[in-house]
Amino acid sequence: MWMTWKCALLNLPYGGAKGGVCCFPEEMSVNEMERLARRYTTEILSMIGPEKDIPAPDMYTNENTMAWIMDTYSNFIGYAVPGVVTGKPVSVGGSLGRKEATGRGVAHTVKMALEKLQLGKDEPTAAVQGFGNVGSITAKYLHQQGIKVVAVSDVQGGVYSAKGLDIPRLLSYVAERGTVVGFDDLDTIENKDVLELEVDILLPAALANVITEHNADRIKCKILAEGANGPVTPEADLILQNKGIFIIPGILANAGGVVVSYFEWVQDIQHLFWSEEQVNEKLGYLMGRAFEEVYQVSTNKKVDNRTAAMMIGVGRVASAKMLRGLYP
Amino acid sequence: MWMTWKCALLNLPYGGAKGGVCCFPEEMSVNEMERLARRYTTEILSMIGPEKDIPAPDMYTNENTMAWIMDTYSNFIGYAVPGVVTGKPVSVGGSLGRKEATGRGVAHTVKMALEKLQLGKDEPTAAVQGFGNVGSITAKYLHQQGIKVVAVSDVQGGVYSAKGLDIPRLLSYVAERGTVVGFDDLDTIENKDVLELEVDILLPAALANVITEHNADRIKCKILAEGANGPVTPEADLILQNKGIFIIPGILANAGGVVVSYFEWVQDIQHLFWSEEQVNEKLGYLMGRAFEEVYQVSTNKKVDNRTAAMMIGVGRVASAKMLRGLYP
Amino acid sequence: MWMTWKCALLNLPYGGAKGGVCCFPEEMSVNEMERLARRYTTEILSMIGPEKDIPAPDMYTNENTMAWIMDTYSNFIGYAVPGVVTGKPVSVGGSLGRKEATGRGVAHTVKMALEKLQLGKDEPTAAVQGFGNVGSITAKYLHQQGIKVVAVSDVQGGVYSAKGLDIPRLLSYVAERGTVVGFDDLDTIENKDVLELEVDILLPAALANVITEHNADRIKCKILAEGANGPVTPEADLILQNKGIFIIPGILANAGGVVVSYFEWVQDIQHLFWSEEQVNEKLGYLMGRAFEEVYQVSTNKKVDNRTAAMMIGVGRVASAKMLRGLYP
Amino acid sequence: MWMTWKCALLNLPYGGAKGGVCCFPEEMSVNEMERLARRYTTEILSMIGPEKDIPAPDMYTNENTMAWIMDTYSNFIGYAVPGVVTGKPVSVGGSLGRKEATGRGVAHTVKMALEKLQLGKDEPTAAVQGFGNVGSITAKYLHQQGIKVVAVSDVQGGVYSAKGLDIPRLLSYVAERGTVVGFDDLDTIENKDVLELEVDILLPAALANVITEHNADRIKCKILAEGANGPVTPEADLILQNKGIFIIPGILANAGGVVVSYFEWVQDIQHLFWSEEQVNEKLGYLMGRAFEEVYQVSTNKKVDNRTAAMMIGVGRVASAKMLRGLYP
Amino acid sequence: MWMTWKCALLNLPYGGAKGGVCCFPEEMSVNEMERLARRYTTEILSMIGPEKDIPAPDMYTNENTMAWIMDTYSNFIGYAVPGVVTGKPVSVGGSLGRKEATGRGVAHTVKMALEKLQLGKDEPTAAVQGFGNVGSITAKYLHQQGIKVVAVSDVQGGVYSAKGLDIPRLLSYVAERGTVVGFDDLDTIENKDVLELEVDILLPAALANVITEHNADRIKCKILAEGANGPVTPEADLILQNKGIFIIPGILANAGGVVVSYFEWVQDIQHLFWSEEQVNEKLGYLMGRAFEEVYQVSTNKKVDNRTAAMMIGVGRVASAKMLRGLYP
Amino acid sequence: MWMTWKCALLNLPYGGAKGGVCCFPEEMSVNEMERLARRYTTEILSMIGPEKDIPAPDMYTNENTMAWIMDTYSNFIGYAVPGVVTGKPVSVGGSLGRKEATGRGVAHTVKMALEKLQLGKDEPTAAVQGFGNVGSITAKYLHQQGIKVVAVSDVQGGVYSAKGLDIPRLLSYVAERGTVVGFDDLDTIENKDVLELEVDILLPAALANVITEHNADRIKCKILAEGANGPVTPEADLILQNKGIFIIPGILANAGGVVVSYFEWVQDIQHLFWSEEQVNEKLGYLMGRAFEEVYQVSTNKKVDNRTAAMMIGVGRVASAKMLRGLYP
Repeated sequence: MWMTWKCALLNLPYGGAKGGVCCFPEEMSVNEMERLARRYTTEILSMIGPEKDIPAPDMYTNENTMAWIMDTYSNFIGYAVPGVVTGKPVSVGGSLGRKEATGRGVAHTVKMALEKLQLGKDEPTAAVQGFGNVGSITAKYLHQQGIKVVAVSDVQGGVYSAKGLDIPRLLSYVAERGTVVGFDDLDTIENKDVLELEVDILLPAALANVITEHNADRIKCKILAEGANGPVTPEADLILQNKGIFIIPGILANAGGVVVSYFEWVQDIQHLFWSEEQVNEKLGYLMGRAFEEVYQVSTNKKVDNRTAAMMIGVGRVASAKMLRGLYP
Repeated sequence: MWMTWKCALLNLPYGGAKGGVCCFPEEMSVNEMERLARRYTTEILSMIGPEKDIPAPDMYTNENTMAWIMDTYSNFIGYAVPGVVTGKPVSVGGSLGRKEATGRGVAHTVKMALEKLQLGKDEPTAAVQGFGNVGSITAKYLHQQGIKVVAVSDVQGGVYSAKGLDIPRLLSYVAERGTVVGFDDLDTIENKDVLELEVDILLPAALANVITEHNADRIKCKILAEGANGPVTPEADLILQNKGIFIIPGILANAGGVVVSYFEWVQDIQHLFWSEEQVNEKLGYLMGRAFEEVYQVSTNKKVDNRTAAMMIGVGRVASAKMLRGLYP
Repeated sequence: MWMTWKCALLNLPYGGAKGGVCCFPEEMSVNEMERLARRYTTEILSMIGPEKDIPAPDMYTNENTMAWIMDTYSNFIGYAVPGVVTGKPVSVGGSLGRKEATGRGVAHTVKMALEKLQLGKDEPTAAVQGFGNVGSITAKYLHQQGIKVVAVSDVQGGVYSAKGLDIPRLLSYVAERGTVVGFDDLDTIENKDVLELEVDILLPAALANVITEHNADRIKCKILAEGANGPVTPEADLILQNKGIFIIPGILANAGGVVVSYFEWVQDIQHLFWSEEQVNEKLGYLMGRAFEEVYQVSTNKKVDNRTAAMMIGVGRVASAKMLRGLYP
Repeated sequence: MWMTWKCALLNLPYGGAKGGVCCFPEEMSVNEMERLARRYTTEILSMIGPEKDIPAPDMYTNENTMAWIMDTYSNFIGYAVPGVVTGKPVSVGGSLGRKEATGRGVAHTVKMALEKLQLGKDEPTAAVQGFGNVGSITAKYLHQQGIKVVAVSDVQGGVYSAKGLDIPRLLSYVAERGTVVGFDDLDTIENKDVLELEVDILLPAALANVITEHNADRIKCKILAEGANGPVTPEADLILQNKGIFIIPGILANAGGVVVSYFEWVQDIQHLFWSEEQVNEKLGYLMGRAFEEVYQVSTNKKVDNRTAAMMIGVGRVASAKMLRGLYP
Repeated sequence: MWMTWKCALLNLPYGGAKGGVCCFPEEMSVNEMERLARRYTTEILSMIGPEKDIPAPDMYTNENTMAWIMDTYSNFIGYAVPGVVTGKPVSVGGSLGRKEATGRGVAHTVKMALEKLQLGKDEPTAAVQGFGNVGSITAKYLHQQGIKVVAVSDVQGGVYSAKGLDIPRLLSYVAERGTVVGFDDLDTIENKDVLELEVDILLPAALANVITEHNADRIKCKILAEGANGPVTPEADLILQNKGIFIIPGILANAGGVVVSYFEWVQDIQHLFWSEEQVNEKLGYLMGRAFEEVYQVSTNKKVDNRTAAMMIGVGRVASAKMLRGLYP
Repeated sequence: MWMTWKCALLNLPYGGAKGGVCCFPEEMSVNEMERLARRYTTEILSMIGPEKDIPAPDMYTNENTMAWIMDTYSNFIGYAVPGVVTGKPVSVGGSLGRKEATGRGVAHTVKMALEKLQLGKDEPTAAVQGFGNVGSITAKYLHQQGIKVVAVSDVQGGVYSAKGLDIPRLLSYVAERGTVVGFDDLDTIENKDVLELEVDILLPAALANVITEHNADRIKCKILAEGANGPVTPEADLILQNKGIFIIPGILANAGGVVVSYFEWVQDIQHLFWSEEQVNEKLGYLMGRAFEEVYQVSTNKKVDNRTAAMMIGVGRVASAKMLRGLYP
């Protein structure tokens, strides 16, 4: 359901669905994984297709899985159908720029928020909780935008530097060591403390429900961008709103991933592939438009950003449903 | 047949056809209209489709009707097929910029005619007969192009001002009152007199056959752009030509509507939607190219614009037919 | 097979195949040719299609043949399917810029080679063997790029001028006379001597195997661009490499034709047609990207261009095969 | 429409429709006829098929035409589809026994009528007007059933013999001479007089409207079997009913043709072909069942046979329509 | 699952599945029922079809529902597809003899059991619990086979007559009164006592689980034919087996219904409809063959009939699965 | 090609084709055979199907292979399609009576030949060369028809008994020992001598080309039935004809196998399965009809049976081709 609202908010011509297989992937060989993926594909064959339902990788699946699904489906159809799944390797029809899409999108919304709040003049500061695909890529782009990232953390702990961290070097460090801990011999800071730092921008990019009624009071940022899904509980949300924090809800902030999945599908359908620059430019356009629409509804209807985003997403689905009617 | 020549002139990959249902739409409820539209769709199901025949709204049908047809067709196919009709609401796959497309196209051809005739330096004057969708939008864009619109009329009558009408205010006035009559306390001028004003540009945008052998003598414009279909009778056409009036035939002047219907279809097939700016820019490109081709043929072959437009349209269809051959 | 590597090198989503009919086309009437084309189309009907296998013209077939195939296929499908073949006449779905595509592509790779070798500052010289579609168009674009074309030849012989030939006038001359011989009253030079001129750029654009172990020693150019398929034998190839000649292999140099065939197909699938400028720009982009990739592999892996091109092409196919797997 | 009622009466799972081409078949060569048949087939391709609409020969078409249609359709589908038409030559999927089906059916209903009226004991007499496919075959089977055929006629006139005609010899005579006139040196009798003979069974098997209000009074038979379509006008019908004549309406009497067309289709769908004996036995069963149903309705509802037949046919269609409902 | 074993036992080329809609049919109008049936049909459209899954009526659905499903499905396909469901009204493709099929099948197995046990010589006696569609039709045929039906019961109670009941008159009585109670002024006997009568044949044809460990001891019949599904609990089954009662398990006894559903489907696919006699004869053949096979396995493997029937059914599915293999 | 003439002779709606895979089946595991069969099936997927081309087992393939092909094809189609291949195991849609079909057919033609030659009164004698599937089953049925089989042979040698062999006991003997040698302690007779015995009926059922110009003189039978394909060379054929031997050509004699393959397909398409008696009866009917037709042509046209059979087969294909025409 959430995917449906997210797609509607971004104006992607998609609904939302989810499917899976009960199994123990850790105990399976690659060959078993492949056979399972192919069997599963044939079982759902009549329900998927580039015009019907387009799977993408999720837990325990990756771009290899997508290649198997695409190959199995194509075998049934009789020719290569790359558009049946997204998240494929580039060499079998995937899109350039997909891996960085979510982080790039988060950074874009942060940039727009800074402009709206007129916070961009001085060097704003940021703290990033979670340094996986989303957190690290976002940090990279925040840094490029001239934002001083003062703290980052991962499951092993975090590092803090009031002068700002050298993100490019940090990324290399993490690529080698697998953690941010120990970078530049900085002291380790606890994960939960990262959230409570006095920064302009807070980016929870790890788990859900990290900001609750218990620590919401102590959040001191001006902008909170939800890199993870649901990092703020409903109770905490009210507290943060009352404190006047500008929240960029996950449905908007981390939509970059599905946007580029959509772009992959469009390229596959057109059989015409875009350069990474084109992908990024179109991603920026869609993210920017959605941000602006949320901001306008929020301002005009005097609601918070999260409510505004939902009003747009649900409203668009409802409007289309009414126009099409119930038949038969 | 006329749609076929128009599409060929604009280089759209379309033919032309028309279908309808004998009924009394005024006496039918919305629910009856919906059921009739759905029934009709199932009856013609094997003949329509995004690759076969793509209906668009015409008399007594509107974008709601298109949504019903699209929904019924999609239900049969098994997934959403927005490309089966054009003229849909934007939220179910319609195109931005469609509503203003015809008027915008007319204004564009007028602008090109002014350039060709080198009339654009001084502030040219225009009279617009008919102030519905086509007439009013054209007036709006003529005004934006710096043309002084001195007279407009609708079924209730017209207004005239030698200094030029303030079109933006007039559009608001009409939106409120439903007529141009009474605007700025100007005197009312009769519809037929609008046609005979001494202006650079005359835009008959109301009914067919308003300029006939009886009043053609008294037409005093330099450029006549056919916003309506067939406002000039064949007899009048000869008289106007002899007077040296530069006629932009309807097949060219008012082609903007079908061009953007075509764009809607292309966007639906690509599942990639254009911004209004992109739509307008592409519309301008196609209209400009067709105008230029008509102008070249007219000049080279020493024929009037209407003949030149037909030569191009019919010629393209004939050439394609000959190349493909008759089979079986 | 070679088409497969070429398409992979250019990143076109195509494989490679070839088909034909044993017959004596010189003895057949146009009507017989048409009937044969239609019969052949119905025989291979289940194997071709815009998503399956897309024929293009080759020996004894031309754009008329493609129109017949397209018409026959479309008749079976029930609506026009321009994307089933490429190389069609523009009026039934062909692409602008297709005829000049190969020559334009050759010229583009020459230009890039000059830049890489920093030979572009002074007016470089070129000799063109073969003045058919590929050779003449390439010469035209080399000339436009400021290169001095000092010799060209065709089956009847060649002409040479140390000051450089006036290519635009030469093209008109050939269009009239059917040969380059006699142009500007220049002395005739033998075909084989053209190859051995002391020029910066040598363009064999006629037949295969014109440069062999017997004359390779005497080749004196700095850049050799293979306009024809296989003008250099494997033995000669080694000799030229040892002499340090920068060879642009045919798989890269003359790929412009299939690239624009691919563009034609994309336009047909999108039902949106590009201007000639757009076609040329996209052609330049793809040719340039492939050239750059070959150059990088050549430099990094210390192999010649031909090997580098093959490494990329074969490597991409292998990688995609491995990702998709063998099924069933 | 009449075909619909006839099929419903016989319980065949068919509706009724008719199509044709405006042309001058007498002026066309066989080759032109073939090309026309093929073109027509492709034009109606989406509307015909073994599960949709199954053409059969009618005026100016014959089993050759059916073979062309079947071949053209099969070519489009990709394999032989004999069930798309009926009335084909046996060697491409036609049915044995089809040519004699109508006459055999008429004779069968006459036999049943004799039993119902208990007229079969003594040798009943019959007169046959029209000696084409229907009349001559019916005569043959009446003769085989022990009925004395005393008179037959064709366009050139008729022959009469109170002792009964030797039908087998007469059939050979007609096969040779092309007319019944002159058989056994019998006197010629006028066509209209054949109708007014005092016989048990009258079989008008030539044209429509031969029994009208003008001669109905003089009809003296006990059983009138309509071999032709509509030989009795509505006015004459009332007069004959009042005279107590047992009319077997055409919708029942001459249904044998469509029954065996249906059998041909069933055999084609099953790909299993029946012997002529099986065809005849099944034909007899269906004709007999329909006759019995008409007789029962006629008796129970006290209506004439024609009305009874219509009540059954129309009633079945109405019942099926009501059960299926109107959708959408 | 049980349907799968039953079909395998009878050698029908079917599996087994079940589907439904959560709703309150008692509170719905006929129109709502129709709309629900049509909506449901479109939702499962991609899973049903004459070659895929063929629904048949069950609780709260009847032959009208089947007609709606068939009509909706046919509308989507484009022509009438009677074979998509069974249990249709005869006029839209249903089979003759379907309504009496289950009872007729039960009676047939009883007859065969009598022969095997050599109990047919003297007039055997029977008691029938449950007088709905199955019980009453079975009683009718048992009576026709010369069996003395001494007791029958329905929800309101039962009647008993040692001389045997006059079943034809009883059927008329029930048709009028809606119950067997009061027939011939006989005393009423309780339902549970009917089961314990001393008869040759006991036919529980009402509910499941009527013979349990509590009353199994008191069952005195020689043959027990399960007209209902599961009238004997597993515990009671053992007791009855120990008493040497010949049980005809429901999977065999009441299979007549699905057999004729299968026949309906075959007739629809062939488009050739059978007389009631043909249906009954083929039903008898299949029931007899299955009975014989169960009897042979039971005798050869020394197992009870129920086990034998399951061995055959499960075994056939297993064998087919093994032969086809698991793919992919 | 030969299969085409055979099918035409038997009036089966089939053509003929053959396909295979180059591999070493003896070196492959069952699992490899299965994977190869499935891969091959997907490669030819677009060319096979119950309406297109229906494979059947041949060398190194058996009913298991057919089950794999059927399963693979069905998986692609989405539901079980038994009709895509014949020669399947009965439990997945094979036909009863298939294994004995060829031998049964040979015996049937022999029986008819005896009648035609009026040799059936006394106990005729027969010699059978080859005791595989065809020879042994034929022997079994010849024996049942009252023919005295005096000699049989296999690869290891033959046995002879002037009194006639006890075929039922011999079949058991062979089932156990794998050879006829040693049966009843009879002397061994050489294979080639079996052919030259003085018997009424000679049945070469082993290899091709066993009767040549070298031994044809010494053949002494009255009837020679070709159980194998091509046991008589063309040269020998002339010699045998001159000796007045009545040859039943293989195209007719051993057609029973393909006839029942055809029956299997018909049953699969109808989804209605025949009893073994029905299969045998229909087989007898088709064999008898073809025999009779060959005999009539042979007699009327005064040609030998082989020529007559070819005249019928080739003639039917030619006639159908001419009726359908060449298109396009």
